[in-house]
Amino acid sequence: GYATKTFEATLFPGDGIGPEIAAAVKEIFNAAKIPVAWDEQHIGKTPDPRTNSMVTRENLDSVLKHKIGLKGPMATPIGKGFRSLNLTLRKELDLYANVRPCFNIPGYKTRYDGINLVTVRENTEGEYSGLEHEVVPGVVESLKVITRKASSRIAEFAFAYARENGRQKVSAVHKANIMKKADGLFLECCREAATKYPDIKYEELIVDNACMQLVSNPTQFDVLVMPNLYGDIISDLCAGLVGGLGLTPSMNIGLNGLALAEAVHGTAPDIAGKNKANPTALLLSSCMMLRHIGRKQDADNIQNAVISVIAEGKWRTADLGGNANTTDFTKAIIDKLE
Amino acid sequence: GYATKTFEATLFPGDGIGPEIAAAVKEIFNAAKIPVAWDEQHIGKTPDPRTNSMVTRENLDSVLKHKIGLKGPMATPIGKGFRSLNLTLRKELDLYANVRPCFNIPGYKTRYDGINLVTVRENTEGEYSGLEHEVVPGVVESLKVITRKASSRIAEFAFAYARENGRQKVSAVHKANIMKKADGLFLECCREAATKYPDIKYEELIVDNACMQLVSNPTQFDVLVMPNLYGDIISDLCAGLVGGLGLTPSMNIGLNGLALAEAVHGTAPDIAGKNKANPTALLLSSCMMLRHIGRKQDADNIQNAVISVIAEGKWRTADLGGNANTTDFTKAIIDKLE
Ligand SMILES: CC(C)[C@H](C(=O)O)[C@@H](O)C(=O)O
Ligand SMILES: CC(C)[C@H](C(=O)O)[C@@H](O)C(=O)O
Repeated sequence: GYATKTFEATLFPGDGIGPEIAAAVKEIFNAAKIPVAWDEQHIGKTPDPRTNSMVTRENLDSVLKHKIGLKGPMATPIGKGFRSLNLTLRKELDLYANVRPCFNIPGYKTRYDGINLVTVRENTEGEYSGLEHEVVPGVVESLKVITRKASSRIAEFAFAYARENGRQKVSAVHKANIMKKADGLFLECCREAATKYPDIKYEELIVDNACMQLVSNPTQFDVLVMPNLYGDIISDLCAGLVGGLGLTPSMNIGLNGLALAEAVHGTAPDIAGKNKANPTALLLSSCMMLRHIGRKQDADNIQNAVISVIAEGKWRTADLGGNANTTDFTKAIIDKLE
Repeated sequence: GYATKTFEATLFPGDGIGPEIAAAVKEIFNAAKIPVAWDEQHIGKTPDPRTNSMVTRENLDSVLKHKIGLKGPMATPIGKGFRSLNLTLRKELDLYANVRPCFNIPGYKTRYDGINLVTVRENTEGEYSGLEHEVVPGVVESLKVITRKASSRIAEFAFAYARENGRQKVSAVHKANIMKKADGLFLECCREAATKYPDIKYEELIVDNACMQLVSNPTQFDVLVMPNLYGDIISDLCAGLVGGLGLTPSMNIGLNGLALAEAVHGTAPDIAGKNKANPTALLLSSCMMLRHIGRKQDADNIQNAVISVIAEGKWRTADLGGNANTTDFTKAIIDKLE
């Protein structure tokens, strides 16, 4: 049946600690008997003329073919003319929705308890248009682009996600008191989507107030939907509430089921190759990937194992205040698998 | 001498709870024997053709004349064509720097301790340009404008503020990895200013990371400087860490010493006229105003009295979990004054 049928998935191990945390995922998938065939992809070292980017045509085609992938952190070469590899993947694959669940990990204490929210970020436009120019010396214009098309699909996505995942409320985050037309259009699309989902509560928050509420009373939130830059800011803020980007998963979703899960933390070059990295963010992202293709049971198994190991505290990596290495942590998770 | 010489200051009581909290300030200033002559100003009920706004020519002239003012919350009429009154004042008076100190109030417990930072926000441009248009149906462009002039003066301001106030570090917040030209120009100006202040440490943070750091480790920060929208977001976030906008002061600063202190919370129409409002934000803002004109001792007296009353906890208003009314709270502060 489905559960044992081999499926293919793209794997970008990425840079820095990427290969080590990707190895942890592969080992754990193996131990959990998940019948995956990884199509391992590496970003090029020189620009591919077919994509105008280090991201090669083969990289993109692999994700388009398998429709599902997992991505470690990637270092973007510094210097003018290089577009972020992360952004290139999102844009070229039209991965329009960025979904980041944010929840407390039992036993890992932060200042906050009981957080269980999801940020849904528009992933293709807004302040990320890349359109900027110097009008006269010392005067720069940067274009924020908001379209009905992208705003409607992210709004629809957020409500559909809420309903499918048994969530109660969608909060749209905006600054339409200042960007009346741009964020006004975004809100209009959210309101339209809301009318189609009368079972889901709908509210609107101005972005500054949303951040104040998030740091003072985050448990009031469920699903948050917002334009690109607010999503970038708020998803990091939320990660900070529960322990940082090393513990929070992320997935980028496109049309026709296309999805690329990713760890959004950095490449941590200082500890790369030293068997010290914490693979949690990539593991939890891999669980999002599994859920996305209908392997809920596999996802829950792995996620529960990861969370139990962190909660028990015996095998925590250095970033969580422990002294386990990546191998110890991986083994502890495998020992927990049912 | 200076301390007893009467000075004039503009007072906008504002809407909703504005008149009550302004009355509290006036009483406390009286009791503290601060020789102020308030020039009370009210925003018009119909647009003034000379300003194209509810903010009248007289309103602006009052601040320009006295060079110092205090402002309660103002309700902006809803509907197209009305520009926020707050923004009109900032723009018309070219109040280019928005300064918001953020510190824990002893005895008022939040999840955070030991916070003592100041956000310095560019107050005139960026995403607040007001330049937006619909290119074709369903496609809106909104212009973010960053200039060398405004970026340099806010950067210089932040460093000068840091030095004058015995602060050690300025952190510039940006998203120059995405808005390479706009935020790149902003950073360039910050770096130039930094070279002139070798006694002040300088660092740069990407805005998403800044927010994650602020919620996980805010005591690392001292002075933060940033473009308009990030300042709007981060100053609210910071207020949220220590108890909200009801407890945090703000001041807008322009050229030649011009300054307008303001409470940035809302007008709270639900409790307006009921003697329930908490005047703390306006009081602490009035202390910023006093410090700005060199009345440090007066400012410290009032600020210490306000903080002691809240810390002791006997006379807290409802928003702080107490059952004192505005009159009780005001009287308690007056009783504390030296
Ligand atoms: C690395 C950077 C370009 C990226 C972004 O701004 O989207 C990151 O912050 C993220 O949130 O994935
Ligand atoms: C009321 C609003 C227009 C204003 C702003 O966006 O600047 C407010 O949020 C502030 O921070 O003073």
